[in-house]
Amino acid sequence: MDAKPVPVPVAALEGLALEALAICGLSPEDARAATEVLVTTDTWGVYTHGTKSLRGYARRLRGGGLNPRGKPAVVREGPAWAVVDGNSSIGMVTAIFAMETAIAKARACGIGFTTVKNSCHFGAAGYYAQLAVHHGMVGQAMASDTASVTAPGSRGPVLGSNPFAFAAPAGEEPPVLLDVSTAAVAGGKIRIAATFGQPIPATWLVDHEGVPTLDPNLYPHQASLTPMAGHKGYGLALMIEVLSGLLSGAALTSAIGSWIDSDPSLPTDHGHAFLALDVGAFFPLDQYKRRMDGLIREIRQAPKAKGQERIWLPGEKEWEARQRALKQGIDLPSDVRDSLAGLVADLGLTAPTWL
Amino acid sequence: MDAKPVPVPVAALEGLALEALAICGLSPEDARAATEVLVTTDTWGVYTHGTKSLRGYARRLRGGGLNPRGKPAVVREGPAWAVVDGNSSIGMVTAIFAMETAIAKARACGIGFTTVKNSCHFGAAGYYAQLAVHHGMVGQAMASDTASVTAPGSRGPVLGSNPFAFAAPAGEEPPVLLDVSTAAVAGGKIRIAATFGQPIPATWLVDHEGVPTLDPNLYPHQASLTPMAGHKGYGLALMIEVLSGLLSGAALTSAIGSWIDSDPSLPTDHGHAFLALDVGAFFPLDQYKRRMDGLIREIRQAPKAKGQERIWLPGEKEWEARQRALKQGIDLPSDVRDSLAGLVADLGLTAPTWL
Repeated sequence: MDAKPVPVPVAALEGLALEALAICGLSPEDARAATEVLVTTDTWGVYTHGTKSLRGYARRLRGGGLNPRGKPAVVREGPAWAVVDGNSSIGMVTAIFAMETAIAKARACGIGFTTVKNSCHFGAAGYYAQLAVHHGMVGQAMASDTASVTAPGSRGPVLGSNPFAFAAPAGEEPPVLLDVSTAAVAGGKIRIAATFGQPIPATWLVDHEGVPTLDPNLYPHQASLTPMAGHKGYGLALMIEVLSGLLSGAALTSAIGSWIDSDPSLPTDHGHAFLALDVGAFFPLDQYKRRMDGLIREIRQAPKAKGQERIWLPGEKEWEARQRALKQGIDLPSDVRDSLAGLVADLGLTAPTWL
Repeated sequence: MDAKPVPVPVAALEGLALEALAICGLSPEDARAATEVLVTTDTWGVYTHGTKSLRGYARRLRGGGLNPRGKPAVVREGPAWAVVDGNSSIGMVTAIFAMETAIAKARACGIGFTTVKNSCHFGAAGYYAQLAVHHGMVGQAMASDTASVTAPGSRGPVLGSNPFAFAAPAGEEPPVLLDVSTAAVAGGKIRIAATFGQPIPATWLVDHEGVPTLDPNLYPHQASLTPMAGHKGYGLALMIEVLSGLLSGAALTSAIGSWIDSDPSLPTDHGHAFLALDVGAFFPLDQYKRRMDGLIREIRQAPKAKGQERIWLPGEKEWEARQRALKQGIDLPSDVRDSLAGLVADLGLTAPTWL
């Protein structure tokens, strides 16, 4: 049995990501932006959506389905909203552009909402939602994805695992940050269970007949994810499809390319949507911050259930993981290391000593 | 055993609601608006949120906690948003005013968002979301409520069952209408289980130690609801609390009065939030309608799971129930009839023959 690998310094992981994205043809500015998204996500401990995905993005950047020099642009707008064409840029660059557009609209109008077409997988929705917090704003981010999740009563995939994120600033307390998939579980977790030969709960997957299965290896070709909380997650996923896909003109459901499995020479045409609300427009910001801190503390200090020691606010685990990662490095799981090793091999890079 | 009571004609139920609200002091216009909300909800078959609630509203209207002649008003606004003070009007009147304000803002700006303070229980969130559909808009409606739901790790209630609704127009197909609580189950369903002596699943309630219980009679004083999908429903409820309560200045969590159980001479200070998006601003409306119809049909026609005959779109059961109710009358369950009989007795009305 191998010794546990040492944690990877944040700067070292950033260096590898920057090098890989530069070789794929991204401008230094775009490579820096995408790296910031993916490595921040790893520092949160959300390894399913961090640098593990670089290999897949690199494959599509080199295959032509993503345009390394693509630039997102506003194609339709009003004072408080915009439709953004991602022009097949890497998803992180497009999503930052669209969220920053929503924030600028909200600064002018109190509220800003943007939809996006011609994008790709954008990593963790939470990254974009929390950008609003730095401006004293509440943020939402969401995305459609290729069909992988059943509806109640369906045999196979009907909608994507369409993620949804929400962030809100606080005063002395850390911001609230929620980032959830509308599937019962993230596809990445099932891939990990398959990689490590772990069984899965009966509520995660249904087989080719629509019947629950415990075998993670059937996913995604012979099994489909179930929606979070049954009809509720299905309905929320449909809402995200409408906001991200129909209000932008992006592809829908099965017409969205799989960013992992589809022909890398083709665009995937994912859709996204972003909302920013300027807190100070609605309510005096200092009073809001005090009330938000009070709400957070009321929840944290609520009496604990038998055997429980802590009530976590959404995002608290991620902020704490990030503080640890910045000090001690990132404990990259073996599936992420394997993916990065594959990336290094694909691109003909020299493997860093820590890999 | 009693014979099953005959269905109640929609107009007859409306007549009783109008009479009760008039006696409580509402203007004819406000009584008409509140009746429309509550009876429409009953026609959808959503009996937990229809005229069953009239008795509780009447108690507070007569107790002084709701002001029968209160008028909601915009107290702060921009071109695309507003904060509404409900001035302790009945929740339906305030919520319609706030949603119509959001719709008017969206007509002018593409997007409209309103928050509400000094309101009360507003019935079914879905009613307000679907108002947007008649204007070719997408709608959202949400509300905070007094703490009744645990957080993962808590012993007792931390947040309300904060409901969320979404509606989107289609072309030839009926609109999509999602209306969900962020609790694992609506409190009304637990009250019904208690009324009928039915057991409940282990995932609905935790007892005074935070441990799952099967006894619906413990709710709400010795047991608390669990959140939908664990940390996901908890996080969404917190988002709704921020949007409805913090961006409006309404009361939060346990400071919100219970519209059923609290002193009827006191306002409850519920908060709400409403969003309207004008579809045609973002994407040509005729193309949107064709794409939406296509999405709905793709989902409906997807292969069925073994043993399943139909995949329902969100709202389809409600639209079908309404068509039946308009033709054949409403099959009011006995708990609704009992509540209406109590209302008739409380107000000294003559019981209608159908009750």
